[in-house]
Amino acid sequence: MPRFRVTIEYDGTPFVGWQRQSTGPSVQAAIEAALPKFTGEAPEVTAAGRTDAGVHAAGQVIHFDLVRDFPAAKIADALNWHLQPDPIAALDSALAAPDFHARLSATRRAYRYRISTRRAPPVLERNRVWHVGRALDVAAMQAAAARLVGHHDFTTFRAKECQAKSPLKTLDRLDVSRAGDEVVIEAASRSFLHRQVRNMVGTLKLVGDGKWSPDDVTAALAARDRSAGGPTAPPEGLCLMAVGYDATTG
Amino acid sequence: MPRFRVTIEYDGTPFVGWQRQSTGPSVQAAIEAALPKFTGEAPEVTAAGRTDAGVHAAGQVIHFDLVRDFPAAKIADALNWHLQPDPIAALDSALAAPDFHARLSATRRAYRYRISTRRAPPVLERNRVWHVGRALDVAAMQAAAARLVGHHDFTTFRAKECQAKSPLKTLDRLDVSRAGDEVVIEAASRSFLHRQVRNMVGTLKLVGDGKWSPDDVTAALAARDRSAGGPTAPPEGLCLMAVGYDATTG
Repeated sequence: MPRFRVTIEYDGTPFVGWQRQSTGPSVQAAIEAALPKFTGEAPEVTAAGRTDAGVHAAGQVIHFDLVRDFPAAKIADALNWHLQPDPIAALDSALAAPDFHARLSATRRAYRYRISTRRAPPVLERNRVWHVGRALDVAAMQAAAARLVGHHDFTTFRAKECQAKSPLKTLDRLDVSRAGDEVVIEAASRSFLHRQVRNMVGTLKLVGDGKWSPDDVTAALAARDRSAGGPTAPPEGLCLMAVGYDATTG
Repeated sequence: MPRFRVTIEYDGTPFVGWQRQSTGPSVQAAIEAALPKFTGEAPEVTAAGRTDAGVHAAGQVIHFDLVRDFPAAKIADALNWHLQPDPIAALDSALAAPDFHARLSATRRAYRYRISTRRAPPVLERNRVWHVGRALDVAAMQAAAARLVGHHDFTTFRAKECQAKSPLKTLDRLDVSRAGDEVVIEAASRSFLHRQVRNMVGTLKLVGDGKWSPDDVTAALAARDRSAGGPTAPPEGLCLMAVGYDATTG
């Protein structure tokens, strides 16, 4: 029973999220509807990260099994044909090891969050950025972000629906930089709690506004209480950029 | 009778182009419909460049006159409010000199054309790039582009509908570079003939494919015949980036 691995990109705007739900179209359902059209089989598809409604992916990784063999390199093209006109694209496809698991084997996830600071609403980047519409103190945001890097109990930044067994995570990277009239936040970790990136971004934005200091962020983290953190940043600024695997399982 | 100047951005996808037409929604008509809602007047609006259907702008410049005065700096915000939900944004607004003319006073126009060379269709950049879907020889394209820079008769790259009095133009810049899986072409001139950029890009793409040599581009230019040039590149890859004015009129 061969296992296949596919890297996908999607515009999260029209979807209720990665996961199949009765409430509307999902990325998972679109891919699971496309696969039978050229494989004759209807496998369940597993993703590295279950992105929320409106969240994008440039490098999501999925896996699925087929009973019959199929030329692995041709799966991306076939998916792209049958996924039209949905805003989902398969970037590459390959045969995976039988024990490869898109979610459980992943050892690194990288997210990017984009904030637009210009006054005018985004048009060419509509649904791709959080429109804050005013300048933010990037240096203060970077100083505050550094307080979150490392091994911590991230309960303050965890959605109450989060199903992770432990709130302990190691945040490997949280960098804030300016790019033109945008503030870009890059986050990387082996894994994240549900809404962790958006909750951290919503908190860093309070620092960028001058309402919070980096010390306030340290105190919020130490509180281990979601109500001590800032609001959740909206989904449209977030994009799952890449998922990493160890060489042996990847 | 004060004259106002506004810089605008738009996603050209849903429009028949800049210019008002009976065949569908235009950027000009959307702005001319928004202005009366807060000025009580219905001025005609003039743009620096009359972009075609599907072509975008990140720095289009327009002007219009009002009979009554209006706080110039507030026009951008008011336009942005009344332009919703159209994908058009006013980036800034200012009082202009009485003899300022968005099109006739312009001394420099800069366009960017983006080609996606990756195999998978664009999703996050849908309607923003020309999807060629295979690698292009960027060095050969750059060598060919250099043959077009300077003062020439650009009849070969001129749409037959072009209303310019003369096909003689000075192309100040035509640079081809790679950016990730994109090929980006930057063009600048005091003014361009109708479809000149897209016709040049369609020709450079033949060079990138190895079908034409830089010498073929020189010969096509010298032919002064549209049928000697390559096909017109599609509109979605093109964006009017900026319009420049001399200090005295700007």
